[in-house]
Amino acid sequence: MKKTIIGIMGPGENATSTDLENAYKLGQLIAETGWILLTGGRNVGVMDAANKGAKSANGLTIGILPGNDTRGISEAVDIAIVTDMGNARNNINILSSDVIIACGTGAGTASEIALALKAHKQVILLNHSFESQLFFKNLGKINIFVVNNAVEAINQAREILANPR
Amino acid sequence: MKKTIIGIMGPGENATSTDLENAYKLGQLIAETGWILLTGGRNVGVMDAANKGAKSANGLTIGILPGNDTRGISEAVDIAIVTDMGNARNNINILSSDVIIACGTGAGTASEIALALKAHKQVILLNHSFESQLFFKNLGKINIFVVNNAVEAINQAREILANPR
Amino acid sequence: MKKTIIGIMGPGENATSTDLENAYKLGQLIAETGWILLTGGRNVGVMDAANKGAKSANGLTIGILPGNDTRGISEAVDIAIVTDMGNARNNINILSSDVIIACGTGAGTASEIALALKAHKQVILLNHSFESQLFFKNLGKINIFVVNNAVEAINQAREILANPR
Amino acid sequence: MKKTIIGIMGPGENATSTDLENAYKLGQLIAETGWILLTGGRNVGVMDAANKGAKSANGLTIGILPGNDTRGISEAVDIAIVTDMGNARNNINILSSDVIIACGTGAGTASEIALALKAHKQVILLNHSFESQLFFKNLGKINIFVVNNAVEAINQAREILANPR
Repeated sequence: MKKTIIGIMGPGENATSTDLENAYKLGQLIAETGWILLTGGRNVGVMDAANKGAKSANGLTIGILPGNDTRGISEAVDIAIVTDMGNARNNINILSSDVIIACGTGAGTASEIALALKAHKQVILLNHSFESQLFFKNLGKINIFVVNNAVEAINQAREILANPR
Repeated sequence: MKKTIIGIMGPGENATSTDLENAYKLGQLIAETGWILLTGGRNVGVMDAANKGAKSANGLTIGILPGNDTRGISEAVDIAIVTDMGNARNNINILSSDVIIACGTGAGTASEIALALKAHKQVILLNHSFESQLFFKNLGKINIFVVNNAVEAINQAREILANPR
Repeated sequence: MKKTIIGIMGPGENATSTDLENAYKLGQLIAETGWILLTGGRNVGVMDAANKGAKSANGLTIGILPGNDTRGISEAVDIAIVTDMGNARNNINILSSDVIIACGTGAGTASEIALALKAHKQVILLNHSFESQLFFKNLGKINIFVVNNAVEAINQAREILANPR
Repeated sequence: MKKTIIGIMGPGENATSTDLENAYKLGQLIAETGWILLTGGRNVGVMDAANKGAKSANGLTIGILPGNDTRGISEAVDIAIVTDMGNARNNINILSSDVIIACGTGAGTASEIALALKAHKQVILLNHSFESQLFFKNLGKINIFVVNNAVEAINQAREILANPR
């Protein structure tokens, strides 16, 4: 009965325009595929763009919020999970996602990738620098996948779901 | 955009048959009203019965799980939030619910009612003993409502939502 | 090697003068016995008084703080554990304490007693109303102890530690 | 009144012999300096070695445990903080430490470094690969320090404490 959840992680305030475009497209494709989108839920950066993309395709969106109420929530989040756990909620983000896509990077996103690898989850990297790819490939080995665009990310996610470890 | 979430809290292994009937009925009514159901997500007691009731009326169900994977999840949960926080997830249950219905009681449920009152949330008590009603009325004052059946609980929830504090 | 930790839980802003006197005395006796004191760490109410009592007897004090830094910490806390978990840190308070003393009450304290009972921990109630005693006795049965003053609480704690369940 | 806490993060089961030697030495030096040692508290790898080093110099040791009891605790931990939060406790590790030393690496340690940078904390890297140094330097900029041995790490920690940002 449990539905498939795809987590999109990525920078908030420091997202690049490429990250935002990728995030919107990813949200759209996730919704079109019939998956549920999970993000950190705030109204900035990759979180906000991904949620808006998913809603543009009538998807369902979950936001795992760091604060103790819904202030600062993306208006494109349907289901607000209010954790009051700050960045420790990053662990909930990754444990609740069947596949994790790291759309761009930053300190918060890096913590999510590392927590995902610690939990033996598979992570797809999109628009990561050379040193980020090198570092996480080395850390996560077969659980890290590098892709070049949103469509490739979705195809990779589909493959991961079809072949559970 | 955020949808209304009603949290049903109640005993797991020690639920009474009255609690289970109430929980099923509550789940059904929540779904029929167009609200989303949130529970602790496990496949026992009030959580399981409420989710099954909601699904019988084609509702959407969220389970906030205590463990680090989805083992022991109610088969009637659509969206699994995997917290790996044990009973500390009780705080997420109440912060994420617009209204909390305590359907029966026990130590876990009591912690949720107390955490809800601490967060200035409103709580509806259904099938609580005299001493539980006395204790929580005294503790929560105007934020505690005692009802006699599932229909009354839903009416009370509707009233709470219509008159936000 | 692990040292014995006694947790004192109790109201912050709403502590009565009796609660504050009891908390100070409890802190003092805990330190004199050679135990470590654990509280919620803030500079108000029972937390603050207990820490000051413990320091007056050269004890060691741990504060489990709800915020993401040490603002608002009791000046009598030696070791600050910064959780950024809000009231979910109440679960850490009780899991980390070998014995829990509820010195007065309120919504936060009630959540801690309930979480302690959920975790099969033993709790000593000091200066609780009749309905609080009734409620928690009924909920926790043999894991709830009612005492009349700080000295009785310490004696009860000693007995609990000597006879682990 | 709050005492200075130095957090040593590092691999558990996969620690190298160099990591273990560094961790023991770091624990010793932290204790000799009069600081308190904080680790993840388990009886393996860098955590265990650091605690043993600190106890060899009569230091005080805090272990922030992931489970819901003290099973698997390092016998050299004095103060056990039982979180029942799994890897989300990594955020508590770094928020509670005045300075963080990453002694070796792995997925858990990488999550702690990233969470530390997210919280604007300063992190000292000891025995990190070239790609790890490159990645975290790029991510954390002036908040990342690379050192060559335990003595240099302690000197760097002293400097960080003397010049708070």
